[in-house]
Amino acid sequence: MDLGISTAVTDLTLAQRAALGSGADMWTTEAAGSVPPVRLADGPHGLRTQAGTGDHLGIGASVPATCFPPAVGLSQSWDVALVEQVGGALGDECQAQGVGVLLGPGVNIKRDPRGGRNFEYFSEDPLVSGVLGAAWVRGVQSRGVGTSLKHFAANNAEHDRMRSSSDVDERPLREIYLRAFQRVVQDARPWTVMCSYNRVNGVYAAENRWLLTEVLRGEWGFDGAVVSDWGAVRDRVAAVAAGLDLEMPGGGGRTDAQVVTAVGAGALDEAVVTRSAERVAELAGRVAAGRRDGVTLDEEQHHALARDVAGRCIVLLKNDDGVLPLAAEASLAVIGELAQVPRYQGGGSSHVNATRVDVPLDEIRALAGGAVEFATGFTTDGSGDAGVLRDEAVRVAAAADAAVVFLGLAARQESEGFDREHIELPAEQVDLLAAVVAVQPRTAVVLCHGGVLRLAPVAAVAPAVVDAALLGQAAGGAVADVLFGVVNPSGRLAETVPLRLQDSPAYLAFPGEHSHVRYGEGLFVGYRWYDAREMDVTFPFGHGLSYTTFEYAGLALEAAAEGIRARVTVTNTGRRAGREVVQFYVGVPGSAVTRAMRELKGFVVVDLAPGQGATVDVLLRRDDLAYWDTRLDRWVVEGGAYEVWAGVSSRDLRVHGSVDVAGDPVHVPLTLDSTLGEVMADPTAAAALGQALSGMLGGGAVAAATGADLGVDLARMMASIPLGRVLGFSGGQVGPEQLEQLLAAANAAHDADSGS
Amino acid sequence: MDLGISTAVTDLTLAQRAALGSGADMWTTEAAGSVPPVRLADGPHGLRTQAGTGDHLGIGASVPATCFPPAVGLSQSWDVALVEQVGGALGDECQAQGVGVLLGPGVNIKRDPRGGRNFEYFSEDPLVSGVLGAAWVRGVQSRGVGTSLKHFAANNAEHDRMRSSSDVDERPLREIYLRAFQRVVQDARPWTVMCSYNRVNGVYAAENRWLLTEVLRGEWGFDGAVVSDWGAVRDRVAAVAAGLDLEMPGGGGRTDAQVVTAVGAGALDEAVVTRSAERVAELAGRVAAGRRDGVTLDEEQHHALARDVAGRCIVLLKNDDGVLPLAAEASLAVIGELAQVPRYQGGGSSHVNATRVDVPLDEIRALAGGAVEFATGFTTDGSGDAGVLRDEAVRVAAAADAAVVFLGLAARQESEGFDREHIELPAEQVDLLAAVVAVQPRTAVVLCHGGVLRLAPVAAVAPAVVDAALLGQAAGGAVADVLFGVVNPSGRLAETVPLRLQDSPAYLAFPGEHSHVRYGEGLFVGYRWYDAREMDVTFPFGHGLSYTTFEYAGLALEAAAEGIRARVTVTNTGRRAGREVVQFYVGVPGSAVTRAMRELKGFVVVDLAPGQGATVDVLLRRDDLAYWDTRLDRWVVEGGAYEVWAGVSSRDLRVHGSVDVAGDPVHVPLTLDSTLGEVMADPTAAAALGQALSGMLGGGAVAAATGADLGVDLARMMASIPLGRVLGFSGGQVGPEQLEQLLAAANAAHDADSGS
Repeated sequence: MDLGISTAVTDLTLAQRAALGSGADMWTTEAAGSVPPVRLADGPHGLRTQAGTGDHLGIGASVPATCFPPAVGLSQSWDVALVEQVGGALGDECQAQGVGVLLGPGVNIKRDPRGGRNFEYFSEDPLVSGVLGAAWVRGVQSRGVGTSLKHFAANNAEHDRMRSSSDVDERPLREIYLRAFQRVVQDARPWTVMCSYNRVNGVYAAENRWLLTEVLRGEWGFDGAVVSDWGAVRDRVAAVAAGLDLEMPGGGGRTDAQVVTAVGAGALDEAVVTRSAERVAELAGRVAAGRRDGVTLDEEQHHALARDVAGRCIVLLKNDDGVLPLAAEASLAVIGELAQVPRYQGGGSSHVNATRVDVPLDEIRALAGGAVEFATGFTTDGSGDAGVLRDEAVRVAAAADAAVVFLGLAARQESEGFDREHIELPAEQVDLLAAVVAVQPRTAVVLCHGGVLRLAPVAAVAPAVVDAALLGQAAGGAVADVLFGVVNPSGRLAETVPLRLQDSPAYLAFPGEHSHVRYGEGLFVGYRWYDAREMDVTFPFGHGLSYTTFEYAGLALEAAAEGIRARVTVTNTGRRAGREVVQFYVGVPGSAVTRAMRELKGFVVVDLAPGQGATVDVLLRRDDLAYWDTRLDRWVVEGGAYEVWAGVSSRDLRVHGSVDVAGDPVHVPLTLDSTLGEVMADPTAAAALGQALSGMLGGGAVAAATGADLGVDLARMMASIPLGRVLGFSGGQVGPEQLEQLLAAANAAHDADSGS
Repeated sequence: MDLGISTAVTDLTLAQRAALGSGADMWTTEAAGSVPPVRLADGPHGLRTQAGTGDHLGIGASVPATCFPPAVGLSQSWDVALVEQVGGALGDECQAQGVGVLLGPGVNIKRDPRGGRNFEYFSEDPLVSGVLGAAWVRGVQSRGVGTSLKHFAANNAEHDRMRSSSDVDERPLREIYLRAFQRVVQDARPWTVMCSYNRVNGVYAAENRWLLTEVLRGEWGFDGAVVSDWGAVRDRVAAVAAGLDLEMPGGGGRTDAQVVTAVGAGALDEAVVTRSAERVAELAGRVAAGRRDGVTLDEEQHHALARDVAGRCIVLLKNDDGVLPLAAEASLAVIGELAQVPRYQGGGSSHVNATRVDVPLDEIRALAGGAVEFATGFTTDGSGDAGVLRDEAVRVAAAADAAVVFLGLAARQESEGFDREHIELPAEQVDLLAAVVAVQPRTAVVLCHGGVLRLAPVAAVAPAVVDAALLGQAAGGAVADVLFGVVNPSGRLAETVPLRLQDSPAYLAFPGEHSHVRYGEGLFVGYRWYDAREMDVTFPFGHGLSYTTFEYAGLALEAAAEGIRARVTVTNTGRRAGREVVQFYVGVPGSAVTRAMRELKGFVVVDLAPGQGATVDVLLRRDDLAYWDTRLDRWVVEGGAYEVWAGVSSRDLRVHGSVDVAGDPVHVPLTLDSTLGEVMADPTAAAALGQALSGMLGGGAVAAATGADLGVDLARMMASIPLGRVLGFSGGQVGPEQLEQLLAAANAAHDADSGS
């Protein structure tokens, strides 16, 4: 696979090795010696390649490519095979365009609904993000094209993104924000990882040795190259020392010279430069080995795939009175500018020049058996008279058998580069909807948007609501398929829809100020927050309806070395074929550490014909059950009874069971900072120290004291006193040396017992 | 005042100077040379002095003393003069007992309702805590007795209190948790400050040089001695180096020897030891100078004062249908064990051996004109048959004209040493209340408790609710005074009563784990949280009713050098004399920094006869308007329009106005890390750099790009790019040196303009 290229760097001069670590231009790496250049291109949901070397900022027009559903839509499929299939198609397009590395997937967690780039990310949940991200990488790389797992790490807002420090405690950092990255690296081995613009706990990601070297390579075993986000390198020398391999775009050789100078001055280890050059050379070798000539883009086939995929990503949020699917013969009012001027992707580096774009209104007309009348209803740029537009829409709606109202945000309201300030639909759209429903009770809403919207006002009036998020260039056809029941919707929300923005976990700490943002909500991101605080939401994480119904029965749980094996039987009890996303949530009641009430630990998609049942078998991985122990600085699986729920959403849990899981051995060595409670809880230590402590504290006097004079629970108060601090109360009768000897003996006894 | 004692330490040996820095026994400092010992005693709401030298843990029986209302009750007076009067009485009791320093006040913020020691603290708000804490210090010290401002700092939970690190960001630390300490130090100059057990951002308070030396002495000008909480010193040498003067209790000379050894080894500067010894000697001098012989405790007089004070601390939470005050001639049912076995203080080091204790039932009988029947109703220890007790109470209540039901927590449920796990009243009490109200609509509840309770179930059924919190030994008489209208209640909540514990700001991050607690809610503590998230509460901060009514009119605001002068006219529009606590809240709409919606910035008590009006005039201090700027590491008053509300509570705001405040000059020097937006916002820099930047970025090409190809707002995206990072996109045409020269010129121009 490496074609001998990786060893070639030893023949290169230091200057050449340094040059391999920065781009030749906006989209291409340097060539040096036998190392060929690598062409990179923006993604992830389609290629953005510029003709030639690109402009200074890489923002010029790009070559047409298939625009698949952006991550916000794709994630709603919860479908590993589907995402892998999309990855494969993207890999083929890369081959057709001569692209060696596609810049994706983005697996950052959607910490706050206002995050400007949320549409490029999968979920508020690390399992969904990690599993789908890994599938995407497998798909692309199966075609001999590399990926770039991004944006590493804790890049969860656009505001001040090139400076802001994401200040995150170790547990949420490990268990929420890094977990998806870890899964993708370990399960799918992406060829590159892209470090992000922001700082993590005060240190720029590009200069963060802990992140790039200790965690990514040391703990996770990443063996690829670390690429900077475009313009993310502030100090090339510091970045190389931290573990960055490739600065993009190039600095015209300026930073290469800094590397050479630093090596000469002894400020940078030449071996580090060489190792980075090797990694870039290895990447070039992988790309060269994967290169397939003569691949061409079959636009029609990929558009058809994009439509299939988009159909699987649509979430039926609400469907009262069987408003959907629409009767084929019904006359329809289609309302809303977005039915005619489709919204299907977000703005920024992921913006694809689509090969073609389905217009929803046209696709509806193509499937409808009855008359279809259109009314603009509103404009996204505020042009026109809102009252006149509304009145026309009401008239059209009243005259039809049913209405479909497209609502959503304009492209300019959602883009890379800034965060939203609210999650409201424009007021004129909400007013329009109410007016339409007042005359047409059989109204379905189709929502087009990249970030979460406050849907309480929509859900309050509309009997049926379809979430089309952003679905790529074939969105229009896919929406029509679902509206008419050609596709039975099976998408599920990958993000909670709260009642109000004010309810959301990071409401008061987003996007931060003065280049710092405190992730004060800790582990409680997304549904973990709403569940733990027992708050109502409009639509819960994992929610999505179908045109058929499913029943759950017979949850069986088995503790195995690799995790919890969970089996449950799901039956399609309706009259249509349908697809169910079976979700498994796990909780640890009485856990010794802070935990979410329950967390998604597994999911699987199952297609069922009417009346058909199937037993799904899912492994809830042991790794996913672990928490990060800050005392031991490692993952720990707590022993005890684990509760497992299988269900249709995070708040529609159908079956429940409990299983005992054996815990990892945990021994926190006793020290003078251990409390009396901790010491006495250790049988060995208690035996060794009990007598000494009794003597220190005056024995009889303390034994006689009940705490009654102070109205306190004396035993409880004493249990929290560190052993070493007791010396202060002992009147100098016992020294720390004596206690430390006893502790050493107790720790040794424990180690002997546990065989470690 | 120093009687020549402070200079005496230069004649002392190093060993003697070191010895001055630790106690001789549990309650006394060392004597050395001409430096006399100082006797300290627990407080704050009464003296806890032990005969002799005390026992090892200082928990034995203490000498009788007046038990004034603990801080949880006292704070509800919002009455500076009253608190100062209590301080004076406490100072007299210290003189009578030969105590030189009284260990109080406790001004820690009540971060979470579950905090086990909340009853010893004033409020969730730093202004209330600071103003009342300063009044208390002035009162005690006016009698020639020292105080010890505690527990410094961020000691807001009991769980693992001797190790746990309070991990707090700079702004909440400064603006919320340290602000009350700063006010007391600067306004009232306490003779000592007591450092707390916990760590602050990872460093033990006793070893925290930033806290004890840089902030306390350097910024705030504290000139007294820093004393450790009892047993808070883990490393005496590190503590002395950080600024600790006195370790308590003594370590039997063990840690004195460590200090001497460290100085000998060059690990500790002898001058630091000498300076600490001087501070202890100065303290001894102050105590000696303040000593007044022959003061005796007038138990009767102090008990009467305690009753007056307690009456001012009672909050009338609810009073429908004029249930209160009770008609003098009415027959009464008094229900609840707590009416007979009063609950009036918390457990722990502040636990006072009261000189006498009023029994509420006896005091009610003393004021009642009609028959008074008592029923136990429930027991706090679970003894007896709950059903039988309830039935008896219902029978008694039904037979009377009105009922008074005492509800609350048992002493063992609230104490120093542990935090509560919930804020519920015992279920049998809630059931009892519902049963009583069902037969007796004229029912008033009296609540006895140290920490906030969930009161929704009480407020839902009881027409009248009186919050007696903890009121000291005369609580019984004071409650009777309010019930019968001898005292017209004027107390106000110093803490929000939320609908549910789950709503509270630190719900998911209290009390932390593995010796860390993240103050993730940041600035949004107490009412700041509920207001900012627009959440309903049961009773808001500042709430309290009266038997009369008040009207507000004519808010006048004036910006002055020392702050905002606010005047408002308050009129007693009812038929009883009454006392109103006028509260002033300030908000800064459109602030450039994160802010609470509004914050208490002033309050004053006014007594008004029926029909009487008065204009109150309050200075909202400029210092209190400032936020802590983390870029500049100093306080900054933002310029602009400040909104001011005057009202009856944080959610019953009666009048409103706006005033322009001149801001402090702020200039953040421009660097290569400044964004293009920041650079271009500075006119000088924009002029100097605009042309250079245009050249770097390719001029015409960029100017022509509209961002339309990417669907982005290009100007907005570019504005967030740091200047230095632009180099990466410039193709090496411009070097950093050139930019830095331009920045230096721009910064110099600014400095010249501002005359700095």
